[in-house]
Parts: sequence; structure tokens; C-alpha cells
Amino acid sequence: MSNMNRQWILASRPKGLVTPEVLQLRETPVPELEEGQALVRVKYLSLDPTMRIWMSDMAQYMPPVQIGEVMRAFGVGEVTESRNADVKKGDKVLGLTGLQEYALISGKESRGFQKLPSIPFLADSQFLGTLGVNGLTAYFGLLEVGKPQAGETLVVSAAAGATGSIAGQIGKICGCRVVGIAGSMEKCKWIKEDLGFDAAINYKDADWKSQLVVATPAGVDINFENVGGEVMQAVLDRMNLHGRVVLCGLISGYAKEDPALASFGQVLIKRLRVEGFIILDYVARFADAAKQIGMWKMSGKIKDKQTTLQGIEKAPEGINMLFSGGNIGKLVVEV
Amino acid sequence: MSNMNRQWILASRPKGLVTPEVLQLRETPVPELEEGQALVRVKYLSLDPTMRIWMSDMAQYMPPVQIGEVMRAFGVGEVTESRNADVKKGDKVLGLTGLQEYALISGKESRGFQKLPSIPFLADSQFLGTLGVNGLTAYFGLLEVGKPQAGETLVVSAAAGATGSIAGQIGKICGCRVVGIAGSMEKCKWIKEDLGFDAAINYKDADWKSQLVVATPAGVDINFENVGGEVMQAVLDRMNLHGRVVLCGLISGYAKEDPALASFGQVLIKRLRVEGFIILDYVARFADAAKQIGMWKMSGKIKDKQTTLQGIEKAPEGINMLFSGGNIGKLVVEV
Repeated sequence: MSNMNRQWILASRPKGLVTPEVLQLRETPVPELEEGQALVRVKYLSLDPTMRIWMSDMAQYMPPVQIGEVMRAFGVGEVTESRNADVKKGDKVLGLTGLQEYALISGKESRGFQKLPSIPFLADSQFLGTLGVNGLTAYFGLLEVGKPQAGETLVVSAAAGATGSIAGQIGKICGCRVVGIAGSMEKCKWIKEDLGFDAAINYKDADWKSQLVVATPAGVDINFENVGGEVMQAVLDRMNLHGRVVLCGLISGYAKEDPALASFGQVLIKRLRVEGFIILDYVARFADAAKQIGMWKMSGKIKDKQTTLQGIEKAPEGINMLFSGGNIGKLVVEV
Repeated sequence: MSNMNRQWILASRPKGLVTPEVLQLRETPVPELEEGQALVRVKYLSLDPTMRIWMSDMAQYMPPVQIGEVMRAFGVGEVTESRNADVKKGDKVLGLTGLQEYALISGKESRGFQKLPSIPFLADSQFLGTLGVNGLTAYFGLLEVGKPQAGETLVVSAAAGATGSIAGQIGKICGCRVVGIAGSMEKCKWIKEDLGFDAAINYKDADWKSQLVVATPAGVDINFENVGGEVMQAVLDRMNLHGRVVLCGLISGYAKEDPALASFGQVLIKRLRVEGFIILDYVARFADAAKQIGMWKMSGKIKDKQTTLQGIEKAPEGINMLFSGGNIGKLVVEV
């Protein structure tokens, strides 16, 4: 084949945001298929805060991406050619395609590719967000770790993000009072008016901590935490006795040299249960959860929004947008 | 009665350690008993890090001590006079006597006084430590929150303290590898040679973090945390996937204006469960636990040590000793 494949290569480890030294665009010929391989034309790539962790060499929950490798990313695409018995030309698949235009599915190295079902009302890219990692993270994190009860107060940070927006809506389905913390008026308007959050707080307002107190008159029973640092601290200060913190992300610290620090004092005094949560631990139960989320989605109980960047060349600036709060809902690159 | 009662009064809230402005010694006449009251001559007073929290006006798990009140403290003593049907002269009792020589037991205001059983081999003051708040804290914190399994590695900080020393020994009873962190060679020698800890690390050694790595070759499954800040951070860095942190104290931050901060990053990446723990939540089960601890104590499976200060005038400097690491084992004042 004479097609060229554009790939984002991890060229060096980032210190702060992603710079031109960190990710470099390389063009290589699309390889000839060997027996057992299939070629996927990537259509949508998922941009996720956790990619910033994968770029670093800190101890983490998957091996770090090595220097010189294609940057790891989830993507959906279509099989254009197959010498693999499991997939045929035209199949739509989801998996760790990497940040590139073409990905190889190999019989040997399982990247956990799965075929996309064809479901009315669902766009392919939604399998990267609401029906994918973000929806599943919100589902298991809130239900299994947070254990919400009707009438309890749930606070979600990064509430207009791909995961937070769904966590809040599942909280509403469970009968909770749901308060979201986000970084712009537009985001706050979306989660309150369209998604049905009971209150939304813009942490860029000077008086946002007072707003949080007003919005949580009965304190906070569950914190679905995506941000860390000062935002988390303010929510911990509002927690009730024996409250639960679903520690899903600490995005405020990912793109900094120093991690976001917070005090464990409230955890002690209020006997909170804080649990780190990563979706990898629930792989065996993905199918059932995705089915439930899909039903909520189709019945209108869960809504979502997508910010779409056009062209793979936008991927690095897209990753940085996650840390500056530039996107609403799920951020994807249309390749 | 013409006896005088010396009392330590909370005169102002401390900023760091306890200074002469914070606790002031007052002499008042021992009051005449009213119907329903009994008078207790305090024999031993318990000095505990949590007293520093009670002195502050931060939100906490009990009401802060008010300015002008007798400082709150646990004590044991003997009833010298009684107009209360529940206790008679000569009874030994345990409760929140306050930091004073004489305490009133009143029918109305229940301070939860309880009569001390008379048990061979157990000194009265041990009901303040091993058989009291410290032993119960170690027991419920480790067993209910930490849930130790044989073969797991347990790290205890402030391991030569009244609570940590017992938590480590209960860990050994459960079949754990137990590593203690303490602040002097003498303390390390005691917990390793006398109490049977598998390893003891002096955090004042320059290379203590490397020592911790060597002492935990299979990582850390349970952290019984009493200290917080840098000590806690180093242990979190050694935690295994799905490890448990029994957050029992954060003593490194109690006597400072700024709380000891730490990163929640490891909690997320390793999906740790961190639970704040305060013994108040287990009051209903104290009797059974104390019986078990007493049996371990009498069979030699749990050993303890007491640092005794002579005279109630020593109480403030005793409280400060807790933060400078001056005591080994339980710190009490003999009144």
C-alpha cells in the first residue's frame, strides 16, 4: 500500500503542558499486512486527561508510553483490510488505536479491540465517551464506590467534563441532590439547565467557596472527585460524617511538576472513606454497565455533548485544552 | 470541704505548642456535693495528641473545649465521697475527668464514667492506655478498617506510641509482617526487640526512606497512620494495589498552624482505600474488645510501656512531649 500514516510520537517526557518537544508528528507508510493482522482506518480519537499520566514515567496503573513509541490513545475506526479471522473489512472497532491515522490489529498483541455494535441514535464516537471509558468510569465509580442513596448530596468536580457530566446525571437518577463544580458560566449553564444538576458552581468566581456552602445546606455525602488540590479541599471541608470520596482523577496536578497537595485532616476528623478508582478493575462487568448506560441514554435520562477537533494535527493542543478547561463534554479528534 | 482543687484551664487557643498563655493553673475549693454527685480524686491523667485538637476551635469530632473551661482529659481516680446511687466511696472510675485533681461525677451530665474492674497484673493507669482509648483504637482501627490478612505487610507510624505500639503487636498476632516507624534508636530497639516488630525505622536517619524500601520488599498492604505529612507520603509511595490506609492520626500537623499536606496521587493510581478512624464510632463494642486485649496482655502477646510524669503541674510540658516525640509508650501524669 502506498498510503501514508501520520502518527504522534512521544519524543520526550513533558514537564508541564504538551509542547512541540513532547509529541512529534511522523509520517510512515502504512505497513503491508501479515497473516493474522487487520488494518483500521481511525475515525475518532479520544483525548483524555490520563494521557498526560501515560506520557510521564511516574509509577502508574499501566506501563508508561516509551520514548519513540506512538502515543497511546483510545480510538474508533473501520477495518479497511483484514487477514485476521476475527474481523472483516467494514467492521467498526474500538480500542487502543494510538494517536495515529491507521492502526494494526494483530492476533498476537491483544489491544483489547472490540467490535462496535450498531445502535440507533448512537454515534460511533459516543463509544469513546458516554458508552466508553467515561460513562463506565462514572457508572462504577459512583455506584460501586460512592454507593449513593436517595436524598444524599453529591458534589462532582470537573462536572462538565466527559466523566463528571455523566456521574452527576447518574446521581440524579439515584435521587441525590447533585452539585457540579466547573470552570465557566457556559459549562455551569449546561449542567444545570440541560443536564438537570441542582446547582452549578463556577470555581473561577471569587466567592465560589461560599456558593458551595449555600449549595450544600445539608453538607456533602459523596464527592466524585476529578480535580484534586484546592477544589477537592473545599469539598472535603463540606463533607458529612462518614462521607465517601470517589477519587477518580486529580487533573489539577497532572500537568504540573508538583502534585496538587491537600490535607487529610478532614478525612480523619469526619471518618471519610476515600477510595482511588480506576476503571480497569471492572473490565469483567463492562457489558452490563454499557447496556444500562445505553438505555439511560436512549430514554433521555443521560445527555452528553462532544467537543470535536478536526484533524489529527490538533491532538496536542487538544490534550492541553483538557488542562485549561477549554472543552465541554467529551473531547475527540475527528481524524 | 476545705481541700483545694488544682485545675488546668484553657485560657487561649494555641498557635503551635502549648505555652503558658494557653493553659493556666487555677486553684479553687473542692465544691460541696449536691444530691446525685460524687467526688473523684484523680490518680492518673492521660495525655493524648488529640488534646491539641480539642484546644483548637477547628471543626472536630467533639465540641472544642471553650475558653475558661477545665481542659478536657481522660483520667482514672477513686471516689472519695458520694451522694450518687451508682458509685460509692472507694470505687475506681475512668472517664473524662478533665485536667484537674478532683472531678465531679454528676447524675445529670453524663461524662461516661465507668467503674474499673479489678484485674490481676493490670495497673489502674493501664485502663487509660492499653485497656483504654489507645488499645481500643488500635484494635478496631486495625481489625475493622485495615482488615489484615496473614502474610500481608503492615506499616505503623508513631510505632512506639501508645496506640501504634499496640496496633503493631495486633498485626503480629494476625500474622502480618510488621514494620514500625519511630523517632529514636531507643524506640526502634523497643518495638523490634521487645514487641517483636519485624523491622523498625528511625525517621530521623537521613536514609530512612531507603530503609523503608528495604524493610518492605513486598510493598505495603496496610498503613496504620498516626503521623501524616512526609512520613505518610513515604508509606503511600510503598503501598500495593488496593492497599488500605487506617487514618488514625496526623500528629505531625496538630501543633502547626498549617496542616500537614500530602498528595492523593498514590491513592488514585493504586486504588487505595483511605479511611478516617475515630474510636467514638465503636463505643457499643468496647467491652468485648477490651476483654480480648486484656487476654492478649495477660498472656504476654501484647506488651506496653508507660512514661509517667509526676505532678499535675507537668501536664502542659507533657502534652508538648507528644509532639517532640519525648515519650515512649503511654504518657500519663501521676497526680
